Amino acid sequence: MQLPLRGIIPPMVTPLLENMELDSKGLERLIEHLLRGGVHGIFLLGTNGEGPSLGYNIRKRLISEVCAIVDRRVPVLVSISDTSSESALEIAEHSKNAGADALVLASPYYFPISQKEMIDYLRFLAPKLPLPFLLYNIPSCTKLHLSLETIKEAKELGAIGIKDSSGDMGSLYTIIDEFKDQPDFSIIAGAELFLSDTIINGGHAAVAGGANIYPRLFVDLYEASYSKDLERVKELRHLILKMHNTLYSFGNTPTKSITAIKCALAIMGICSEYMVEPLHNFDAQTRKQVETFLGDFNYGGAYHTTVQVAANEKRKI
Amino acid sequence: MQLPLRGIIPPMVTPLLENMELDSKGLERLIEHLLRGGVHGIFLLGTNGEGPSLGYNIRKRLISEVCAIVDRRVPVLVSISDTSSESALEIAEHSKNAGADALVLASPYYFPISQKEMIDYLRFLAPKLPLPFLLYNIPSCTKLHLSLETIKEAKELGAIGIKDSSGDMGSLYTIIDEFKDQPDFSIIAGAELFLSDTIINGGHAAVAGGANIYPRLFVDLYEASYSKDLERVKELRHLILKMHNTLYSFGNTPTKSITAIKCALAIMGICSEYMVEPLHNFDAQTRKQVETFLGDFNYGGAYHTTVQVAANEKRKI
Amino acid sequence: MQLPLRGIIPPMVTPLLENMELDSKGLERLIEHLLRGGVHGIFLLGTNGEGPSLGYNIRKRLISEVCAIVDRRVPVLVSISDTSSESALEIAEHSKNAGADALVLASPYYFPISQKEMIDYLRFLAPKLPLPFLLYNIPSCTKLHLSLETIKEAKELGAIGIKDSSGDMGSLYTIIDEFKDQPDFSIIAGAELFLSDTIINGGHAAVAGGANIYPRLFVDLYEASYSKDLERVKELRHLILKMHNTLYSFGNTPTKSITAIKCALAIMGICSEYMVEPLHNFDAQTRKQVETFLGDFNYGGAYHTTVQVAANEKRKI
Amino acid sequence: MQLPLRGIIPPMVTPLLENMELDSKGLERLIEHLLRGGVHGIFLLGTNGEGPSLGYNIRKRLISEVCAIVDRRVPVLVSISDTSSESALEIAEHSKNAGADALVLASPYYFPISQKEMIDYLRFLAPKLPLPFLLYNIPSCTKLHLSLETIKEAKELGAIGIKDSSGDMGSLYTIIDEFKDQPDFSIIAGAELFLSDTIINGGHAAVAGGANIYPRLFVDLYEASYSKDLERVKELRHLILKMHNTLYSFGNTPTKSITAIKCALAIMGICSEYMVEPLHNFDAQTRKQVETFLGDFNYGGAYHTTVQVAANEKRKI
Repeated sequence: MQLPLRGIIPPMVTPLLENMELDSKGLERLIEHLLRGGVHGIFLLGTNGEGPSLGYNIRKRLISEVCAIVDRRVPVLVSISDTSSESALEIAEHSKNAGADALVLASPYYFPISQKEMIDYLRFLAPKLPLPFLLYNIPSCTKLHLSLETIKEAKELGAIGIKDSSGDMGSLYTIIDEFKDQPDFSIIAGAELFLSDTIINGGHAAVAGGANIYPRLFVDLYEASYSKDLERVKELRHLILKMHNTLYSFGNTPTKSITAIKCALAIMGICSEYMVEPLHNFDAQTRKQVETFLGDFNYGGAYHTTVQVAANEKRKI
Repeated sequence: MQLPLRGIIPPMVTPLLENMELDSKGLERLIEHLLRGGVHGIFLLGTNGEGPSLGYNIRKRLISEVCAIVDRRVPVLVSISDTSSESALEIAEHSKNAGADALVLASPYYFPISQKEMIDYLRFLAPKLPLPFLLYNIPSCTKLHLSLETIKEAKELGAIGIKDSSGDMGSLYTIIDEFKDQPDFSIIAGAELFLSDTIINGGHAAVAGGANIYPRLFVDLYEASYSKDLERVKELRHLILKMHNTLYSFGNTPTKSITAIKCALAIMGICSEYMVEPLHNFDAQTRKQVETFLGDFNYGGAYHTTVQVAANEKRKI
Repeated sequence: MQLPLRGIIPPMVTPLLENMELDSKGLERLIEHLLRGGVHGIFLLGTNGEGPSLGYNIRKRLISEVCAIVDRRVPVLVSISDTSSESALEIAEHSKNAGADALVLASPYYFPISQKEMIDYLRFLAPKLPLPFLLYNIPSCTKLHLSLETIKEAKELGAIGIKDSSGDMGSLYTIIDEFKDQPDFSIIAGAELFLSDTIINGGHAAVAGGANIYPRLFVDLYEASYSKDLERVKELRHLILKMHNTLYSFGNTPTKSITAIKCALAIMGICSEYMVEPLHNFDAQTRKQVETFLGDFNYGGAYHTTVQVAANEKRKI
Repeated sequence: MQLPLRGIIPPMVTPLLENMELDSKGLERLIEHLLRGGVHGIFLLGTNGEGPSLGYNIRKRLISEVCAIVDRRVPVLVSISDTSSESALEIAEHSKNAGADALVLASPYYFPISQKEMIDYLRFLAPKLPLPFLLYNIPSCTKLHLSLETIKEAKELGAIGIKDSSGDMGSLYTIIDEFKDQPDFSIIAGAELFLSDTIINGGHAAVAGGANIYPRLFVDLYEASYSKDLERVKELRHLILKMHNTLYSFGNTPTKSITAIKCALAIMGICSEYMVEPLHNFDAQTRKQVETFLGDFNYGGAYHTTVQVAANEKRKI
C-alpha cells in the first residue's frame, strides 16, 4: 500500500439478503463494478457500509470475502470503530488475518467524550493495532469533532491519515495546511461536495458514497481535480450537485442518501437493497423516484449497460 | 416482578480490575451494599454501568454473576441497547437465561434516526425479546429524544415502562400525564434532581447513579416523596443538590459523575475504580477531592461504617 | 414593591391594531381581565409581549399606558433587553419616568457571548439603571444559558431576582438552593409546567404566558402550590398540561404558543390578535381550533363570561 | 452600482472613542486604508461592524460620514438587520438619504423563526425598502440557516444577492449552482477561508473581516482566484490560514476575531480599538500577542508603512 492513499475509495455499502445474511453474489458484482470504474481502494464497514448496525460475524465474513475478491488489486480499508475497544481490536485482528491493508477508527460513539479522552483512547488503542490506521472524523454520528490537536497527536501515535466527514471545509483546509510538509499523511475528504476542493488544495483522496453507483464519475472528478482542469471540474461537480439535490433528497430520514445508494444499486441489478436495522429500504414510490433519476442521469452510459449486464446475467441463471 | 416497578433502581457501575476483567469480589460487595441500603431493583449495563464500552463476554459474565448474587431478592434489569440489533438480541437471550427480570432498550446510537425509524426498530425488535422491556430515553448519548408518540407506540408493542434520562422535566410530566390511567406502565426518572418531583407527581421509580454510593439516601428520598412528606423531601433534596455541586463537578469530562461514583466506591473500599475505555479514573488530586467530600458528606454514617467494614475485611485476607 | 416578588406575573401580550399602533382599548380590557383574575404583577415587553420586535416609540407608549391603567394596583415590570445597551438604557429611563417598578434584563441576543462577557455587561449596565432589575434567562432566544456564577455576580451587582425560562429544571433547583438563605432574591419560573415545582420547592413567582388567558387558573395553581395542597396542584397542573398539548400545539411555528394566546384573547373579545413581524396571527382554520379549545376548556367559566362581556360592550358602541 | 457585486467588500469595523462616540478621524483613516488597498465596496454595520450593539443615532452618523468620505468611489452597503422591522426601515431610509447603494438584511434575531416566517418577513419588508437589498445568512447569530427555498423566494422579491456567513460550504455551492444562469445575483462569501473556492467556482465577492487589516492581501487573493492562478491562490490562502490560526485565535470569546481586527487596526495607528457592549477590547497581554503577529506577518510591508504613516500623522498634530 503506497502512501499517501490517493484517489477514490468508495465507502462500500454492505449487500444483504432479506434474512440479513451477506448477499455474496451481489458483493462480487458490486466489487467488480467498482474496480471496473477505476476506484483506488475500498472502504468497508463505514457509515455507508452500515458497519455499527451489523453483527460481528457478518462483519468478519464481509471482510474476508472482500479481501478474497479484491485480491490485492486495490487496498482494502476496514472501519473498526466501536463503542467497545475490545470489539474494535477483534475486528482489527480479523482484518489483518483476512489480508486487509489498513484500519479506520472513529471516536467511540456512545458517551460524549472530550478531545483529551479521545487522545487517551488513541494512546491505548494505537499500539495494539495490527495494521496501519487512519482517523475518521464524523461528528454527526459520534458527537465529537476531532480537533487539530487530536489529529496531530494521532499522527504521532502512528495514524497514516484522516478521513474527514465533518462537512466543515474550514477544518479540512486547516488540516491540509498543517500537514502539507508531511506528504505521507493521507487527507481524505468524506463529503462529496468537497472532493475537488480537497484535491485541488493538496488533499489526497475522497471516500464518496456516490462512487458506489457511479465510480467512474468520481474517478473522473478526482483526475480532473488532480490535474487542475477547472472547466472539467466545474462540469462534473455540477453532476454531483445534481445527485445531491435529487437522488440524495428522496425519502425523509437523516440517512436517506445511504438508502438511495443501496436502492440505486438494486435497480441497476448489482446487489440487493435490504438494510439492517435501524435503517430501511425505500417504499415503492420513492424507489420509483430513484429509478427515474437513474434513467435521466446515466453518467457514461453506466446505467443502461449495467442494467443490461444484470438482465443478461439473470437470464442465464 | 410486580408492575409498575417502584422505588430506587441504581444504575450499577461495573466493577473492573486493572486488566478489564470483572472485579467479582467488588461486585459482590457492591450488590450487598445496595441491597443493605434498601434498593428496589438493580439496573445493569446502562450509562453508569459503561455497558456499551464493554466486550460482550464480560457483559454476559456480569449479568450471570449479578443474577446469581441477587438471587431474586430484587428485580434485575439489563440494558441491551446496542447499535446492532443482532447483538442486542444476544444479550437479551443471555439475560433471560441468567434469570434477569427485564430488559431496557435505548435507540441505537450510531446513526442519527427519526422517530419513525425508532418505531420501526421497536416493531422489529419487540416481538423477538424474551423478557419484558422498558424504553430508555437518553438523547445526550443517543442523539434521539423519544417523542410521546414513540413512547405510546412502544407501549402498544409491549413496553412496560420508560426510564427518562433526558433531563427534560416538561417531557417527563407529559409522560406521567399521558399514562396516568395505565398504572402498570412504569415511569422512571433517570435524573436524580427530578426524583422527588417524579414520585410526587405520579411517577414510580428512579434510576439514580448516586444510589451506587448512598443507596439509603435515595431510598429515604423516594419514601419521603411517596408519602408526600415535603419537609423531609426538601431536606434530602438539598443533600442531592450538594452532591451535584461538589462530587459530580470534580474532574472535567462530560461523564465526570460516573467517574466520581466509581472513585467514591473505591475509596469506600467497595470495589475497584478502573474504568473501561474511553473513560478513565480520576487523577490523584481529583481523587483527593472525592475523599474529602466523602468525609464531609457521610449520610447516615455510611462512609465510616463502610470504610471500617472494608478495612476489617482486608485485614482478614 | 415588596420583595421577593410573589405570585403570578403574566408576561403580557402587546395588543396591536392592524396598522401596528397600540390597541389601547384592548390594552385596558386586557389589564382589567388580568387584575380581575388576581395576578400579582404585570411584565411588559418580554417574549410573549413581542418586545424586541416593536419600535421604540410604541414600546414607550405601551409602558406609559400600562402604568397609567394599572395605577400602582400591582407592580409593573418592564423588559429592557436589547442588543444595544444605549437603547436598553433609553427604555429603562422611560420606565422609571412612567412609574414602572422594576426592569428585567436578558443577555444581549445578537452576538454569541461568554458568561464572562455577560458579567462585564452587567457591571457596565447595572450601575446606570434607574430602577431595581431582575435577570432574564431565556437561552432559546439569546443563545446564552446564564450560569449560577453569572447569577451570583448579578446579585452582587444589585439584581433583585431572576426569571428563568430555560426549561432546565435542574438549573432552577440549583438557583433555589443557592439563594435559599437570601429570601429577598426573587426566583421566578418562566415555564408554566414548572410553576408548582418552583413554588413548592421555595421559589417565589411565575411568569406564565397562559395567565394572559386564564389568570385565575394560574393564581389558583400558585396558591395551591404555596399552601402545598398537592391534590389541588395535581388537578390544576393537569389543566395546564392540557393547554400545552392542545392550545400550545396548534400551528407550526417555534413561537406558536404566543400566537395561540393572542388568538384566544381576540376570540374572547379582549384585544386584537395582530402580531408584529416576524410573527403572524393564525390562519382561519387554526383560529377555529383555538375557538373549539376555548369552548371546551373554560376554566372557571371564564370564557363565556368574557365573551358575553365583550359582546355586550360591542353592542353598546 | 454594477451587478453582480464583485471583489472584496470589507465588513468595516466601527471606530469608536472611549465614550462610544464615533472616532471620525479613525473612520477617515480606515476608509482611506481600505480604498488604498483596492477594495471593491464597503459593508457597514454588519457583525464585524458591531451594528446591532450600536444606538440608532450613531448608526445613522456612521452611514452619513462613510457615504461622504467614500463619495461614490466604491459602493456602500448597509446592514439594516434588526429585531424590529420598524427600526430596520428607519435605517434603510437613512441609508438611502445618505447616499448608500444597497441594504443587507439578516433574519430578525430574537425569536427563533421558521423558513416560512422568514419568507413572510421578506414579503412584508422587501416592497418597503428604498434601495436594492441582499440577504445575509449568519445562523451563528440569528439561529436561522436560510434554506435554498428562502433564498429563491428572496430573489423573486427583489434581492440582488446573498452574503453567506454560515460556514457551510456545501450550502454555498448549492447556491452557486442554483443561480449560475442568473448572473446578476451576487453570491458573496462571508467566510474568509472559502473566498477562493467561492470565486473559482462561480461566486462573485467576499465580505472578509481580515480585509479591514490587510485589504490588499484579500484583493490579491480575489484576483488570483478570479484568474484561476491556483499557485498564487495556494500561497495567499496559506497566509489567511495563518491569520486564522494565530491572530483570530488570540483571546477567548466567541467573537475574538472581531476584537483582534479592531486591536490590530489600533496598533497600526488607523483607528481606536474601543468596542461597544457586550464586546470588549483585549487586555494588555493579548494586545501584545497581536502586536507580535503584526510585526511577523506584514503582508506587502503594510504594517510598517502604515505604522509609519500613522506616526507621522500624529507627529503633525
